[in-house]
Amino acid sequence: MGTVTVHGFSPSGNCHKVRLLLEQLGRPYRWVETRSDIGATHTPEFLALNPNAKVPVLVREDGAVLTESNAMLCWLADGTPFLPSDAWERAQALRWMFFEQYSHEPYVAVARFICGWTPIDSPRRAELPRLRERAHDALRVMERHLAEHGWFTGAQYGVADIALFAYTAVADEGGVALEDYPMVRGWLNRVRATDGFVALPENDAEVRERLAATS
Amino acid sequence: MGTVTVHGFSPSGNCHKVRLLLEQLGRPYRWVETRSDIGATHTPEFLALNPNAKVPVLVREDGAVLTESNAMLCWLADGTPFLPSDAWERAQALRWMFFEQYSHEPYVAVARFICGWTPIDSPRRAELPRLRERAHDALRVMERHLAEHGWFTGAQYGVADIALFAYTAVADEGGVALEDYPMVRGWLNRVRATDGFVALPENDAEVRERLAATS
Repeated sequence: MGTVTVHGFSPSGNCHKVRLLLEQLGRPYRWVETRSDIGATHTPEFLALNPNAKVPVLVREDGAVLTESNAMLCWLADGTPFLPSDAWERAQALRWMFFEQYSHEPYVAVARFICGWTPIDSPRRAELPRLRERAHDALRVMERHLAEHGWFTGAQYGVADIALFAYTAVADEGGVALEDYPMVRGWLNRVRATDGFVALPENDAEVRERLAATS
Repeated sequence: MGTVTVHGFSPSGNCHKVRLLLEQLGRPYRWVETRSDIGATHTPEFLALNPNAKVPVLVREDGAVLTESNAMLCWLADGTPFLPSDAWERAQALRWMFFEQYSHEPYVAVARFICGWTPIDSPRRAELPRLRERAHDALRVMERHLAEHGWFTGAQYGVADIALFAYTAVADEGGVALEDYPMVRGWLNRVRATDGFVALPENDAEVRERLAATS
């Protein structure tokens, strides 16, 4: 399939999903750092790649473009153990990936973004109580699933775990504590122990300062 | 695969997606009307089916459960012309389905829901200007795609078109006019002309009254 290029912002969980799977597949890739936090997805060049102005964007060697992190995971994992081959099992993995984008990311990821990547006096901080409430709703659904299942993808680790891991692992940065979710914490540790696992990069000093100042 | 049961709220676009594909596949199904607008997804019985408290829910004859409308579309369409068999093409269809759930439904569908299914004096109406602005962002991305492609699923009509059609067809009910999107209007008409197409049901009198009172 050749070497793919990923335009991504390293601290973004959506972008990290793609990096994590590429690393675990041992696939060569090129990473183009794209500072979505300071408008790099709104340049004419970037909008030509993705009119929806979001990272990540995946580009094949032949120039063909794919957007949406979870669609990238499905494509990269196709034919590998990271995506179930049975249609019903695959649908269950997709179910968690749609859950992630609709019921999890808009709360868990957005709360973290506001805390770490917007000014301390941003009016968006008023959204935090509602976002955190919804984030806990999503975590309760995950906790309940993990009471009976080891993974979200199916019988083994794969794309749905990668999709849900990305922002759950850093939920605390958005003020969403995981202390009430022992099954979720156990699952996070199982993901961290998978072959080829790579963590999100450390936050830079400015982000750490904002996070420390947020409650 | 047997007769599936769909727990759904008929005026919901997410639920209608599943009905539309089932009708177009000519598959037998049982529909259990579930009034999500008045709390029917928060009963203990329903939460046992879907702890995430959302319709639609699909149940197989053997009792196995699938949630998330777009995951249902992928499962039902697997092995049919409604889902591309090529992995890259399938990823492009998924790309639009994730776009629909993240960048389209939370604006187009939620604006419609607020206008038609919440009281005229609901404080949620304050959200409408922002929701409509984002809805137009999504429609612009769709319009641009349709300038070069006939469908969202791939070379032919399928799951991504069904996913995007559901709420785009009734965007005006949320105060999101389609007059600036001729390609989108043309595509809506092409979807309506597909074999076995069924439209959303007419809104009931109470909903029509609220919609008429909204600007």
